[in-house]
Amino acid sequence: MPQTTETTPDEHFMQRAFQLAEYGRGYVSPNPMVGCVLVAEGDIIGEGWHRNYGGPHAEVQAILDAEKRGNEGLLKSATAYVTLEPCSHFGKTPPCADLLIDKKIRKVVVANHDPNPLVAGRGLTILKNAGIEVKSGILAATGHDLNRRFFTFFTKKRPYVILKWAETADGFIAGAGGQPVSISNGYSSQLVHRWRSEEDAILVGRQTVVNDNPRLNVRHWSGISPLRVVLDRNLRLPQALHVFDRSQPTIVYNYLKSTEVPETPERYASEPALAFAQIEKGEDELSQVLADLHKRKVQSVLVEGGTQVISAFINAGLWDEIRHCQSLSRLEEISGVKLSGNAEPIKGIKAPVTSGTLVGFENIDGDLWKYYRFFDSQVYD
Amino acid sequence: MPQTTETTPDEHFMQRAFQLAEYGRGYVSPNPMVGCVLVAEGDIIGEGWHRNYGGPHAEVQAILDAEKRGNEGLLKSATAYVTLEPCSHFGKTPPCADLLIDKKIRKVVVANHDPNPLVAGRGLTILKNAGIEVKSGILAATGHDLNRRFFTFFTKKRPYVILKWAETADGFIAGAGGQPVSISNGYSSQLVHRWRSEEDAILVGRQTVVNDNPRLNVRHWSGISPLRVVLDRNLRLPQALHVFDRSQPTIVYNYLKSTEVPETPERYASEPALAFAQIEKGEDELSQVLADLHKRKVQSVLVEGGTQVISAFINAGLWDEIRHCQSLSRLEEISGVKLSGNAEPIKGIKAPVTSGTLVGFENIDGDLWKYYRFFDSQVYD
Repeated sequence: MPQTTETTPDEHFMQRAFQLAEYGRGYVSPNPMVGCVLVAEGDIIGEGWHRNYGGPHAEVQAILDAEKRGNEGLLKSATAYVTLEPCSHFGKTPPCADLLIDKKIRKVVVANHDPNPLVAGRGLTILKNAGIEVKSGILAATGHDLNRRFFTFFTKKRPYVILKWAETADGFIAGAGGQPVSISNGYSSQLVHRWRSEEDAILVGRQTVVNDNPRLNVRHWSGISPLRVVLDRNLRLPQALHVFDRSQPTIVYNYLKSTEVPETPERYASEPALAFAQIEKGEDELSQVLADLHKRKVQSVLVEGGTQVISAFINAGLWDEIRHCQSLSRLEEISGVKLSGNAEPIKGIKAPVTSGTLVGFENIDGDLWKYYRFFDSQVYD
Repeated sequence: MPQTTETTPDEHFMQRAFQLAEYGRGYVSPNPMVGCVLVAEGDIIGEGWHRNYGGPHAEVQAILDAEKRGNEGLLKSATAYVTLEPCSHFGKTPPCADLLIDKKIRKVVVANHDPNPLVAGRGLTILKNAGIEVKSGILAATGHDLNRRFFTFFTKKRPYVILKWAETADGFIAGAGGQPVSISNGYSSQLVHRWRSEEDAILVGRQTVVNDNPRLNVRHWSGISPLRVVLDRNLRLPQALHVFDRSQPTIVYNYLKSTEVPETPERYASEPALAFAQIEKGEDELSQVLADLHKRKVQSVLVEGGTQVISAFINAGLWDEIRHCQSLSRLEEISGVKLSGNAEPIKGIKAPVTSGTLVGFENIDGDLWKYYRFFDSQVYD
């Protein structure tokens, strides 16, 4: 439970910068969410955030906003609160550190250093060398939490992995033989679609595709549909299934082939590609998949099933969050099939066993969602 | 951001009891949400929660569940984890403390003492006197947070007050003359309906009723509609407005009259009543309203507007939470009316000024919701 704490002015403006950064969620990956607030004489004179991948960075937007408000003259006495260290390299846009120097900003306050080896402290050094006062580490933990996908991508060299499933009160995720059952309610389904809009990719195993023929897109929320990642080791899935419909970028990991001219199925692409990527049979198949997704700059993966795939991620320690829904109803109440409790030991597909630290739960109209995190001892600044 | 912490077995089972308690949200007030887990030899042998106001308490449900599972024989060696001190008085049901003694439960672990003067430590004393081992204070802060409406009701002798509004990017909640404008999006509206289902009452001022003719019910979520509370000091509101349609229990606070035979508009009533309650003109009108709602056992009030009413609550310090939505659009973009920036100082109705401690924020498809709490130094156990 939060406690009463005095907020310093630096924290106050950084909080505002985080709020602005939050607007970018779902639209900026593989870039981080970044917000920027320009403050002169205690007043906010300009605000901005990184809105779209490939678009202007937060600092550029904030300066444009200040100029639009007629505050150009105040920039020289302004402090820039930026959630992440300004970039120092030419990417899709010129370096923001140079812009801040050019505009003669007096002071720059950041929450986090950029873990990207192309920046990694260089942004702040450039500012300091230009005589700009620099302060870092303001609400660093909040910043790290906000961009945990981005930080994990660089520190663990793999996408941030979120495991999601719904199970019945008696612990099943599907009926006998994988028969699909509607475990969670419509509000939960909407929540899941919101989550889909927030992650770069969505991953499912072969059996889930066979059993459910899912679309894996964003329908009950707004936003960009994720890259579909399908595990189909021996390429036995019929091509008539929704995941092959090219309505959405899709990668199929398998033992047999890679797409000849390597297409990169871009989440933002106007013409979605269907690609195949070969992995070697072995103990480390999931690591291979994650390594390949890392190479493709996929920062986060929502794993939606089934039990075997989710359990494999848990057992390998390759996960960061679990979002697990528990229904109030037992399998037989949902499926409508009365099962003989004693004679039949296998009533359905058992759900994975959760792990990690419980960090919260909520009741979505009778669906109990529990949220777990995998914490390690890594310290960020 | 949550940290890695070792969870003790007591905390583990209490967390589960909180999850069960959560299922009662929106259905148990003015009772608290309570969950109960029975544990024998490290295993959960029965679970229960308070499901509906007037229905069996969590302890009763958990014991029934244990018996249904054939675990009656294990009750003698069981520990009961209950989120709140078991009751010691005859209310709508017999005392739970007596039931636990009767079932020979070995040990009782609770998160919080019951602040209700009818219980207030007596429940635990009865258990101790019967030779049952008692432990309290496990995850007490979580328990207090879960039932903060209930605790506030007893400690502050008034309902828990949540102020909610949506404002444009430039800080307006309505157009000139109070003209209604659609500031937040459909997803936000759904969220607000969810909140309505979670509180006992919803309060609006006269001007909001005149401008918006709101229904103030739960349509875009499931659950019970709240008691409508309308401030209409001189009873000038036309009776044709939705708030008077008797589709929902409603109280109108005014200077002129009280309903002759005092009807209590019950949130769970099958025949909703429309009642009038008189207040005295003066500085403390809101306190009078809250005191009367307290007398009627209303534990929480969602205040939905307008600016004048919300600001009055903030200025009087009579609030506990603020939920405030900031749109990305300016008033003129939403209302479609091009306003002359310089000539017209009053473009619309200015939003209230927030207060308190920011405890979180989220982006609902472009609507930025910010959550504030009013913290005081009160300590609970």
